[in-house]
Amino acid sequence: MSKPISFLGEDFLLHTDSACELYHDYASTCAIIDYHNHLSPKDIAENRKFENLTAIWLEGDHYKWRAMRANGVNERFITGNAEPKEKFLAWAKTVPATLRNPLYHWTHLELKRYFGVDELLNEKSAPEIYKHCNSKLQQKDFKVQSLLTGMKVKVVCSTDDPTDSLNHHKAMTSQSTDLKMLPTFRPDKAYASGHVENYNNYLDSLSEVSGVKIELFGDLIAALKNRIDYFDSHGCKAADHGLECIGYDVNGWEKGELIFKKIRTGNPLTGEEQQILQGAALIELSKLYHEKNWVQQFHIGAIRNNNSRLLDSLGPDTGFDSVGDFSQSRNLSSFLNKLDQTNQLAKTILYNLNPADNEVFATMTANFCDGSIPGKIQWGSAWWFLDQKDGMEKQMNTLSNMGLLARFVGMVTDSRSFLSFPRHEYFRRVLCNLLGNDIAKGELPNDLKLIGTMVQDICYNNVKNYFEFE
Amino acid sequence: MSKPISFLGEDFLLHTDSACELYHDYASTCAIIDYHNHLSPKDIAENRKFENLTAIWLEGDHYKWRAMRANGVNERFITGNAEPKEKFLAWAKTVPATLRNPLYHWTHLELKRYFGVDELLNEKSAPEIYKHCNSKLQQKDFKVQSLLTGMKVKVVCSTDDPTDSLNHHKAMTSQSTDLKMLPTFRPDKAYASGHVENYNNYLDSLSEVSGVKIELFGDLIAALKNRIDYFDSHGCKAADHGLECIGYDVNGWEKGELIFKKIRTGNPLTGEEQQILQGAALIELSKLYHEKNWVQQFHIGAIRNNNSRLLDSLGPDTGFDSVGDFSQSRNLSSFLNKLDQTNQLAKTILYNLNPADNEVFATMTANFCDGSIPGKIQWGSAWWFLDQKDGMEKQMNTLSNMGLLARFVGMVTDSRSFLSFPRHEYFRRVLCNLLGNDIAKGELPNDLKLIGTMVQDICYNNVKNYFEFE
Amino acid sequence: MSKPISFLGEDFLLHTDSACELYHDYASTCAIIDYHNHLSPKDIAENRKFENLTAIWLEGDHYKWRAMRANGVNERFITGNAEPKEKFLAWAKTVPATLRNPLYHWTHLELKRYFGVDELLNEKSAPEIYKHCNSKLQQKDFKVQSLLTGMKVKVVCSTDDPTDSLNHHKAMTSQSTDLKMLPTFRPDKAYASGHVENYNNYLDSLSEVSGVKIELFGDLIAALKNRIDYFDSHGCKAADHGLECIGYDVNGWEKGELIFKKIRTGNPLTGEEQQILQGAALIELSKLYHEKNWVQQFHIGAIRNNNSRLLDSLGPDTGFDSVGDFSQSRNLSSFLNKLDQTNQLAKTILYNLNPADNEVFATMTANFCDGSIPGKIQWGSAWWFLDQKDGMEKQMNTLSNMGLLARFVGMVTDSRSFLSFPRHEYFRRVLCNLLGNDIAKGELPNDLKLIGTMVQDICYNNVKNYFEFE
Repeated sequence: MSKPISFLGEDFLLHTDSACELYHDYASTCAIIDYHNHLSPKDIAENRKFENLTAIWLEGDHYKWRAMRANGVNERFITGNAEPKEKFLAWAKTVPATLRNPLYHWTHLELKRYFGVDELLNEKSAPEIYKHCNSKLQQKDFKVQSLLTGMKVKVVCSTDDPTDSLNHHKAMTSQSTDLKMLPTFRPDKAYASGHVENYNNYLDSLSEVSGVKIELFGDLIAALKNRIDYFDSHGCKAADHGLECIGYDVNGWEKGELIFKKIRTGNPLTGEEQQILQGAALIELSKLYHEKNWVQQFHIGAIRNNNSRLLDSLGPDTGFDSVGDFSQSRNLSSFLNKLDQTNQLAKTILYNLNPADNEVFATMTANFCDGSIPGKIQWGSAWWFLDQKDGMEKQMNTLSNMGLLARFVGMVTDSRSFLSFPRHEYFRRVLCNLLGNDIAKGELPNDLKLIGTMVQDICYNNVKNYFEFE
Repeated sequence: MSKPISFLGEDFLLHTDSACELYHDYASTCAIIDYHNHLSPKDIAENRKFENLTAIWLEGDHYKWRAMRANGVNERFITGNAEPKEKFLAWAKTVPATLRNPLYHWTHLELKRYFGVDELLNEKSAPEIYKHCNSKLQQKDFKVQSLLTGMKVKVVCSTDDPTDSLNHHKAMTSQSTDLKMLPTFRPDKAYASGHVENYNNYLDSLSEVSGVKIELFGDLIAALKNRIDYFDSHGCKAADHGLECIGYDVNGWEKGELIFKKIRTGNPLTGEEQQILQGAALIELSKLYHEKNWVQQFHIGAIRNNNSRLLDSLGPDTGFDSVGDFSQSRNLSSFLNKLDQTNQLAKTILYNLNPADNEVFATMTANFCDGSIPGKIQWGSAWWFLDQKDGMEKQMNTLSNMGLLARFVGMVTDSRSFLSFPRHEYFRRVLCNLLGNDIAKGELPNDLKLIGTMVQDICYNNVKNYFEFE
Repeated sequence: MSKPISFLGEDFLLHTDSACELYHDYASTCAIIDYHNHLSPKDIAENRKFENLTAIWLEGDHYKWRAMRANGVNERFITGNAEPKEKFLAWAKTVPATLRNPLYHWTHLELKRYFGVDELLNEKSAPEIYKHCNSKLQQKDFKVQSLLTGMKVKVVCSTDDPTDSLNHHKAMTSQSTDLKMLPTFRPDKAYASGHVENYNNYLDSLSEVSGVKIELFGDLIAALKNRIDYFDSHGCKAADHGLECIGYDVNGWEKGELIFKKIRTGNPLTGEEQQILQGAALIELSKLYHEKNWVQQFHIGAIRNNNSRLLDSLGPDTGFDSVGDFSQSRNLSSFLNKLDQTNQLAKTILYNLNPADNEVFATMTANFCDGSIPGKIQWGSAWWFLDQKDGMEKQMNTLSNMGLLARFVGMVTDSRSFLSFPRHEYFRRVLCNLLGNDIAKGELPNDLKLIGTMVQDICYNNVKNYFEFE
């Protein structure tokens, strides 16, 4: 049932013959739809060429930054003013300390798949690898679009603020490439009312871009509706939201109106008021998504910006977020139910960050599957800190036990890096390995066509049909 | 240590030689005591014969209904007015989408054990299987009592409202069968005070059947005591309760009196008041169970009826419940402690639905084991959504690590279906496999008599002794 | 990839060739630094000889007591006045009921490593084993210091109240032994304000030993500072705290002053006030630890003394504690952030008792690693109920996935027993087995020198460097 396997070899993560066959014959041939990520639309549209490995690999990658800090590396070599090569060496020195962390696999998989590097990265091998990769990066097929299409990426969905002009998305449509880049509507700032001035400034810019004067809560919704129409007309098929937990109040609109007026006239809100406002806005937004037949995504459970000293000096998304432990089930249920009652619940993907919530999320989804389409409410793939072998296996095992794995829309990178697409390969290997093990243990029928069809559905067909990508 | 295994073959789920020996020589020979389920006492007493496979297999099985909805099947083919055969075909079509869900194993295990069907169920095989099973169902040994005794079931404990006449239980005692059917006292409606009118109506019927006029909280307890006496005189040995979490208040009785008066005179209660009333009633009920030497069971942590649109059209227990995330430890501790202080804590089984609570439940039990009887407070077997291989393994591994597996009272079906008794076989295979793996890995002594004795205790002896079934 | 293994044999818990090589060549040769335990400083300083196996093995071991109670053993044979031999027999009879509990492994590992006993302990083998071990215990090399040094223990850190004279620690420094015993500052009683009289009595004794009159909150901190100086001058390098959760309030000092005055003048506090006072004290204490370059440890999440009937008769730490489910992330974040903002966050180890919090703790640590030293904020090893194979594996797997396993300071016994040091061996085997499996599966490079170095860091070097033991 098991066989010896070499590190990152052809059968990496595939521990049975069935797993190998499922991966090589069914999974690896599928194209990639990366339906949620944080790639730069500008870099894609302009087909950016990167100067060196530090620029494409370390800039903006807060996963690596966290690891370096935990390894005792000074901030100068992380986000500071050290030379690109010094930063790369600091990272290379940290790599052996990441053994068993997904970074160790990602690092070597990315070096291998994109640059053909087979060596392990460490302090000693670093200079040669740096030189080798930098030289590759000057080649034409190492520009952004080629990096994507070389990995069989067909569609990427970026993450965009409602005020975004979508100019880069427009520019893409006029290019002769098979690569499709679609926007995703991410209105978090429209209900992030923790800071009076920042919020009002944001509302002002939303007002400007939408042409809607924003004084009342209803104006906010009208302005967002205007932008949803705009996004929709530019190919948008999804919205996304990042929340600690969903704020729900049975009298959301009424309270939301008062609360909105309060902050719009310059008064700070309590934590509870912020939650109610968020929930009230989300209810209205969700109805609009439903009208457009969009997929709404909710990334739930992160506790952000824990370190205010380093937030002040480095800004958000720099490696100081972590897993929160918030109560989720009751509000999540009320929120979805509120929308379902009037048949205005859009297709929905729920992602949780705390795996202690796995079973809550896995079972909550089925409560609102009403038979209208397969897998209408989805429990999203293992996210952020959970985007590793254990996390994926737990998500897929729990999904299997409490829902329908066969209807799963599968993997997204959720990444800021153009080099992270081997994570789809990684996910597919993990999936095939789970299934291969089950076959070997007699827990699934030994019918590779049956199981292989499910593999291809999870890797490609389900997401294509669910989002209705052409 | 491992060997190739065929799907649902003789050694299904048994991955080592020790596991096979433990299962075949020790576990499989044990009779079954199903000490908690939702079988119909009427069907058992009247020895019902089922018309067709749809009637015995799909009616009332909300596990299958959820799966069908998630698979995009229209409600007409689930709970609607489609023909029985159409409903069966809709289910058969969904079966391949349940790969890796316990439904896939249950489905084929049930087809095999009861009907001798070895084929996989799918759209293509469905018509032949339907015909075959329907014809079997007309045979005499496919009536309800034979289905049970054919699986070596000796005792079933049904779940009954305090107002129940227990007429079907009485009818059973006069029949010449070795099968014993005992009632279980399930008083959830006696403290379910969320709906003023429903609650008062229920109290009226409780008043009528008990002959106790119910005006004060003390009257409620007196009426329930009357019914407990009645149940006890009809062989009842256990109570059961379904709760999100246990409501506890140090001044429960005093507050309970006021709250009860409030709703009894037609006024709605706040959520907090409902909780206090529930907790106050449970304290009094538990003392009465202790007097009777009953086993009290608590099923804790479900969040029910999430989908009000479909609750309105289909009613409760139709597939819209899920796993909740409620704080459990403090109230659970206070509740058990309150009863223990006066030595009025009955034998208790605690079941949790959210596996994130596993360790809380596993360790809470031992705080109230006082040496009076082995395993006095039990952590119950993996329940509902957790009733699958992973869930059972986690429950038994955590129980092993934090308590005494050897004293575990083992499996219950908790089922509404007469075809679900292979779940005992499933549990026993999982148990034997865990133990066999440990032996193979040198983590348990290679002493099959020692381990086999423990297996038989968990499968049969413990539950027999604990409940004191004759 | 796997090989047959005998129970407790040379390759116990080591399932691959790589695991064996890592354990035997790298891990087993490392000395032990047991940086947190509850050993008796008196017994160590006086080099106690134990009368019999009951005295050294059953007295004070509430793990065994819980198991005996759950097995139906009368309290007389646990903590009561039965003869030592009777108590031993009662335990021996319980041992077979602990199959799969860590007690089963610990019991036989301890009998084997200290006493050379290879037999399984049960009712039948008990008398002979009792006789054998008692006779061994009379030998010179079975006195406490030899028991420790025989296991290669170099340093033990005891757990001491701020009012402790540290006389035993002083006595040790004058002895000619390589064994080092250092105190740990454990000020829990200084903010345990749940009982007015007990708390004020404690403050009086703290006042007396420190020479600081304690009337105001500031006086409490001054008195504790006095004791911190005293502990520091006697080699202390760490503090420790046991908490349900960290109490944090943004106006902690101000509120703390009022609350402290309230209880110091004889008035009971609400639960919320107790929490605020605790949090306010911890902030001030932490700043003092930072000044001393100590390591601060927090053991978070136990719910203690659940059984008040048996607490009254037996006192605390007698086996009635369990795993709690408290909200942790927000307060933990605020607390660490508050200290970090002014650069006063000491080296910190966070231990959680509820494994549902694993990911919260694993990710929270990295938010406050600022690159100043490797692994500045540590997620501590699997603690108490989690100190078993599954618990350790989960902790190390999650740590690997969300942080840097290579920087982990590793195992502590946290034990009250002089016979529990094979738990370090146990941990090391589990660690090497995880790594060996990964190598065999191709998930780690097959480079035993690279991985072996990491093993030795986790077993010894990291903790030595982190605490700065000489």
